[in-house]
Amino acid sequence: MFMKQRKLVQIIEKLKNIVRSEHVLTSYEERYCYSRDASLYWAMPDVVVRPHTTEEIVEIVKLANKEKIPITPRGAGTNLTGGAIPVKGGIVVDMTGMNRILEINRTNLIAVVEPGVVHEDLEKELAKHGLFWPPDPASTYSCTIGGAIAECAGGMRALKYGTTRDWVLGLEVVLPTGDVIKTGAMTLKNVTGFDLTRLFVGSEGTLGIITKAVLKVRPLPEALLRMSAAFYEIEIAGLAVSKIFETGIVPTIIEIISIECIRAINEWLKLGLPEVDALMVIDLDGTREEVEKLAGKVEKILKDVGAIEIKRATTAKEMEDLYLARRAAYPSTFRAFRKSLTVDDFCVPVNKLPEAFRLAREISKKWRLPMAIIAHAGDGNIHPIWPVDVRYPEEIDRVLKCHTELSHGILKLGGSISAEHGIGILKASLIEEEYGKKAIEVMRAIKRVFDPNDIMNPGKIAL
Amino acid sequence: MFMKQRKLVQIIEKLKNIVRSEHVLTSYEERYCYSRDASLYWAMPDVVVRPHTTEEIVEIVKLANKEKIPITPRGAGTNLTGGAIPVKGGIVVDMTGMNRILEINRTNLIAVVEPGVVHEDLEKELAKHGLFWPPDPASTYSCTIGGAIAECAGGMRALKYGTTRDWVLGLEVVLPTGDVIKTGAMTLKNVTGFDLTRLFVGSEGTLGIITKAVLKVRPLPEALLRMSAAFYEIEIAGLAVSKIFETGIVPTIIEIISIECIRAINEWLKLGLPEVDALMVIDLDGTREEVEKLAGKVEKILKDVGAIEIKRATTAKEMEDLYLARRAAYPSTFRAFRKSLTVDDFCVPVNKLPEAFRLAREISKKWRLPMAIIAHAGDGNIHPIWPVDVRYPEEIDRVLKCHTELSHGILKLGGSISAEHGIGILKASLIEEEYGKKAIEVMRAIKRVFDPNDIMNPGKIAL
Repeated sequence: MFMKQRKLVQIIEKLKNIVRSEHVLTSYEERYCYSRDASLYWAMPDVVVRPHTTEEIVEIVKLANKEKIPITPRGAGTNLTGGAIPVKGGIVVDMTGMNRILEINRTNLIAVVEPGVVHEDLEKELAKHGLFWPPDPASTYSCTIGGAIAECAGGMRALKYGTTRDWVLGLEVVLPTGDVIKTGAMTLKNVTGFDLTRLFVGSEGTLGIITKAVLKVRPLPEALLRMSAAFYEIEIAGLAVSKIFETGIVPTIIEIISIECIRAINEWLKLGLPEVDALMVIDLDGTREEVEKLAGKVEKILKDVGAIEIKRATTAKEMEDLYLARRAAYPSTFRAFRKSLTVDDFCVPVNKLPEAFRLAREISKKWRLPMAIIAHAGDGNIHPIWPVDVRYPEEIDRVLKCHTELSHGILKLGGSISAEHGIGILKASLIEEEYGKKAIEVMRAIKRVFDPNDIMNPGKIAL
Repeated sequence: MFMKQRKLVQIIEKLKNIVRSEHVLTSYEERYCYSRDASLYWAMPDVVVRPHTTEEIVEIVKLANKEKIPITPRGAGTNLTGGAIPVKGGIVVDMTGMNRILEINRTNLIAVVEPGVVHEDLEKELAKHGLFWPPDPASTYSCTIGGAIAECAGGMRALKYGTTRDWVLGLEVVLPTGDVIKTGAMTLKNVTGFDLTRLFVGSEGTLGIITKAVLKVRPLPEALLRMSAAFYEIEIAGLAVSKIFETGIVPTIIEIISIECIRAINEWLKLGLPEVDALMVIDLDGTREEVEKLAGKVEKILKDVGAIEIKRATTAKEMEDLYLARRAAYPSTFRAFRKSLTVDDFCVPVNKLPEAFRLAREISKKWRLPMAIIAHAGDGNIHPIWPVDVRYPEEIDRVLKCHTELSHGILKLGGSISAEHGIGILKASLIEEEYGKKAIEVMRAIKRVFDPNDIMNPGKIAL
C-alpha cells in the first residue's frame, strides 16, 4: 500500500465516476493478480482500473496527474523485464478492455486496432483477409498489441521482416497530462516532423498510454517451408547462420534450441526431437517455387557445416510439431526445471553468436545455474533461460549476478543488453554501460517533456 | 549577412584553428553555392566549413553553441523543402568531406558509413559484396547517406522494403551542445530505452549532426523483373494499385508517370514510351521462379483493369530504359517546362489515389499551373511537379497557393502532407493542421532538450 488510506478512498470514488464501478478493482486478491508480470519482480498496486474508451483514459490520467499518483499501463502482463510492475504502487490501468479491431483494409495494407487486442486474435482475423502482421512475439497467445508496441516486441520472423517498430504507421496516445495526440499517419509513408510514433514504440509505457494503433500489414505469403537440422555443438549452429547469410539467403526465421530445451520438450510432448546439443528450425516464405529453391541451397550449407538430420517438414503435422517445439520451449523447460524461469535477452552481431553461446554457458556454470538457450539466431538474439524460485531472495540474487556478468560480456562482444524484451527494472542499471551518461540524460529529459510529474510507469528504464 | 562583421572575423579565425584553412569558405561566390538547395528558398550563410572528423565537428558545434550562431548541416543539398537552407545565416557545415565507408559486413548484414558517402557510391560498393541498402531516393546519384537519414528518404523500393528509418540500426551524433552520443546498436535487433535512432532519422538536422551510421543491408535478390503498362486515364492506373494488393502481391516498386513527363522524356531521350495519360512501371524482385510467377499474375490484373501495352523488359537495355525513364522524369520535365521545378510530396491511403490524382489536376488547373505527376503509387505517394521561376516572387506565390490548397485537400482525403521530403520551410505552416497544437508543442519541447540555444538548423519544421 503506497497511498494513504483516506486519499485512496477518495481516488477510488473518483475512478468509479469515470468507469463503471465493476471496472475498479480494490480487493487484495484482485490487486494481487496485477502485482506480477513474467519477470522477477513484484509490487502491489493500490487500485486497478479497466477503461474501455480513450475518453475514460483521459479522465483517469488527468486525475492521476493532478494528484501525482503513479500509473502503470498493463496489457497481458507477459513482460520479462518488469515493465508491468507498479513499483511505486498507484493505479494499474488494465488495457484489455479496449480490444476492438477497428479496421482491416486489404487495399491499403493497414489494420487499425485498439491496444488490448490479443496478438493471436489479430493474427487470426487478418488471416481471414489473407493478411498478416509480421511481428510474432512468443507470447502471441496472450500478449496484447499495445504491450507489443510499448515493448517493441520482436519474435521469430524479425529476421526477414524487422520488429514491431517497422510495422506501426501511427498511434493515438493519451499523454501523462491527459492530452490526446495522434502520431504518424494512415498512409504507408510519412515523415512529418519528429518520429513520435517510434518514440512511443519501445518506450515501455513511460511516455503515455497508447489507445489506438495503425499497423502496416502484408498479404500472407503463398507458401511456408519449414526445416530442421541438428548440431553436435551449439557453436557450430551459430556459425551456420553466418554461412547462410554469406550465400545470399535471409530466411524468414532461424531459431536455435539448446539440448536442455530439446530434452524438456521431448519429455513433455514426446516429439522425438534429436537429442543433440542444438536443434535449428528454419522457415522460408514466399512463392512455392522460391521456397523450394532456397531450401535446397540452405540444406547444402547446413550439410557443409556439419549439421545432421536435416529434414524438411513435409506434412502439416510435421510443420506444426516443429513450431510447437519452438513455442513450447519455455513451458517445457519450466516443467523440466520444476521451478519458475527467468528468460534473459541479448543481441550480438551474428558472427559473434558462437562466442556468445560459449560465454553464456561458461558464466552459468560459474554461478552453478542450469541453463537452457533459445535463440532467434538469425538476428543474433539469444535468450538464456535460468530456473529461479522467486520466493527466495538468494536465488534471485544469484540469477541477477549471473545475468549481470553475462551482460558485461555481451557488451564486450559488441552486443546489446536488450534485443526485444526492453529494459524495465531488470536492465535499468546496465543501460548506461551500453550508451554512456549523456544518452541517458537525454532520455530522462525527453521523459520530463512528456511527463513532468513522473506519473507514467515510474521507476523503469533508469529514467 | 547575419553576423556583425567583427564577430564574423573572429569566428572565421576560430574555425581555421579547428579545420585546415582551405576548408573554411568565406568568399561570396563560395557561400552562394551553399545558399540554395532543390527547394524554392534562398539564404546566404555567413561562412561554410568542411570538417573531416567527428572531433572537428565537436569543436565547431561547441564554438557555435557558445556564441549562439546558427548551424545548418548539409549533405548534397538535394532537399526539396528547404532543409539545407541557412535561413538565419551562420555556419553551413558541409558534410561531404566525411565520406568513408568504414565497414561492409556480409556475415552480420550491416554497413557502417560516414554521413557524406554518396548514396550511389554506397550502392556500388555494396553490390561488389552482393548486398544492397533498400532505400533508393531519386537523388541517389548525388545525395548523401547523412542527408537521406536526416530526411528519412524513401524512394521507389519503399513499397516492398520500407523507408530509411527501417534500415538504420544505430548512429553516432554530435549534439548541439557538443556532446557525442551513440544510439541503437551494431546488432540487427535492439530495444534499449527510447528509440533515439529513429528520433534523429527524419529530424532534418534540427537535433544534431550525424557523424556515423550503422545500416542494415540485405543480399541482392537473385532476379529483378521490370514491366510497364500504359493507361488511358491516370485514375485507372491508381485503381490498378489497389487491385494488385488485393490479389496478395506487393511488388518491389509500382511507379506512375503522367503524360506530361512521358512526353518530356520521349522528347529528350527518344525512348518511344507510349504517349497515353499514365505509364506504370513495376519491379518484382526475388528468385527467378518467383518473379516470373508474380509477373504473370500482375499482367493479368493489369489487363483486367484496362491497361494497354503491358510489356516485360526482356533485355538489359529495355530494363535500363524504363529505369532511366523514371529517373529522368525530373530533368526531362525541367527541360520541357523550360523553367526550374518545384516537386511536391504527399501521401494518401492507396484506395484514395484516383481521387488524389483528380484533385491535383483540378487544383493545378484552377491556379493555371502546368503540372506533371510522378507517383510512388504503391505507397500512395504522389509528387506533383510545377514549373516555377524562382526569380519572380509572384510565380513562387502562385505555386505556394496551389501547394497549400492541395495540401488541405490531401489532408481531407486522410492523407499526409509529407511522405518522404520532410517539412523544412515549405510545409512548416501546415504541420499543425495534420497533427494539432499539442503534438507540435511536444516536438518543440523535444527540440529544446537537445538544442537549448536553438542553433541547430533553426527555422525548420515549425520548431
